[in-house]
Amino acid sequence: MATTDDRRPKYQRIADSLREAIETGEYGPGDRLPGENELMSTYGVARMTARQALSVLREEGVAEARKGAGVFVRAFRPLRRRGIHRLSRDQWGDGRSIWSADIENRDLEVDGITVSEEPAPEHIGAVLDLADGEAVCVRRRRFVLDGKPVLLATSHLPMSLVAGSAITREDTGPGGTYARLAELGHAPVHFREEIRSRMPSKDETTRLSMSAGTPVILICRTAYTAEGRPVEVNEMTLDASSYILEYDFDAGPGTATADN
Amino acid sequence: MATTDDRRPKYQRIADSLREAIETGEYGPGDRLPGENELMSTYGVARMTARQALSVLREEGVAEARKGAGVFVRAFRPLRRRGIHRLSRDQWGDGRSIWSADIENRDLEVDGITVSEEPAPEHIGAVLDLADGEAVCVRRRRFVLDGKPVLLATSHLPMSLVAGSAITREDTGPGGTYARLAELGHAPVHFREEIRSRMPSKDETTRLSMSAGTPVILICRTAYTAEGRPVEVNEMTLDASSYILEYDFDAGPGTATADN
Repeated sequence: MATTDDRRPKYQRIADSLREAIETGEYGPGDRLPGENELMSTYGVARMTARQALSVLREEGVAEARKGAGVFVRAFRPLRRRGIHRLSRDQWGDGRSIWSADIENRDLEVDGITVSEEPAPEHIGAVLDLADGEAVCVRRRRFVLDGKPVLLATSHLPMSLVAGSAITREDTGPGGTYARLAELGHAPVHFREEIRSRMPSKDETTRLSMSAGTPVILICRTAYTAEGRPVEVNEMTLDASSYILEYDFDAGPGTATADN
Repeated sequence: MATTDDRRPKYQRIADSLREAIETGEYGPGDRLPGENELMSTYGVARMTARQALSVLREEGVAEARKGAGVFVRAFRPLRRRGIHRLSRDQWGDGRSIWSADIENRDLEVDGITVSEEPAPEHIGAVLDLADGEAVCVRRRRFVLDGKPVLLATSHLPMSLVAGSAITREDTGPGGTYARLAELGHAPVHFREEIRSRMPSKDETTRLSMSAGTPVILICRTAYTAEGRPVEVNEMTLDASSYILEYDFDAGPGTATADN
């Protein structure tokens, strides 16, 4: 939308024009935006004003600077993460990982896998119904898409449930953690996902190689057995520019799981 | 976690200490953080360093400045938005709005309601299966919680479906838009919600009175009839600091709706 509100500062109006040009497709993903010199002559403004206009778009995450090359429209080619289909048993039941549905011929690698036994953090113990200080198996890993880290995940499972199983090893085997839980008689069939978004901490910025002006999405997933026993809490941190989350569901009262 | 990484700048390490004190509950929501003078004497640093430390926490959205009073821990008291239960027919079927489940005795008001007839934007027309330039009924409104705007919503419904109904009026009557659609023989029973997060535009910052360092969550919800006909696309923009989204679902293949 072109604006005629002349009370706003010039750099803001220039940023609006550029944003509009991006939204209408005049500049596509990965395109180089006009540089400071070009903005100075097009709009008749000082270098500082041109610089401020570009930095507005960078702070919004719409554009990103590449060293020595200029400012470019952010290439947004996100993964589609399907909350409901993705977890359906016919996907993980036949040996595929729950992540395979997301990657669509792209190169998704898992790195930095660590598995350890730790006393359950208080908020995790509360959700998993554990006694004070009871041990959990903690599985940490990072997902890297096309060379870019996109997701950090930390799963917690009651040690009393998984001790001695492949869940306590780096390689959990075909079908992953959920297939092993099923073999142990604790197949996860109900799920709750809680979602928030905030700016990343310094540590998250580093581990996810985040660009400026990009939030993280936090997903906390709890998996329950048919009897309603919580068997896993997975805390995930996603680079928001790399994901679209999708949930498909019915309105009928028969669809929803117990709400407790 | 205490850090012994001395290569990082001092303001970063001070910010880490303060963040840790917030996470462990030493400073609770709404508490005032130590001011510049106090940080200068506690850590033996210059005013600029103390100021930078506080600004790190503000940029992360962990803390917020109040004019003349100092820097305070952000009070995070979010709404819980239940994606699946919230929409179940026994909630909107008896005259309650789909939002009532979220507010838990808090004062949620709707303002700025506008209703208009417009040619469908291209991306909306594509989802609603409309002919080029076909008209949609556009309902815009803002939700304000305890005096703070928290959500902007823009619903699009095919005009051919809703013309002449209360859906085209500001007050849609008991049960809202979905109850009216049901009366018209187009009860919405399947839903798809797509979720993204990014930094707000200047306009969104203003309309939602956003604090610095806070992203928005975008939810695009499509509602389908039992026959799979799309009847509404609702584009929502949420202040991320005001919401937790929750989805409960089963893993069974019978649960999911058609994936097209």
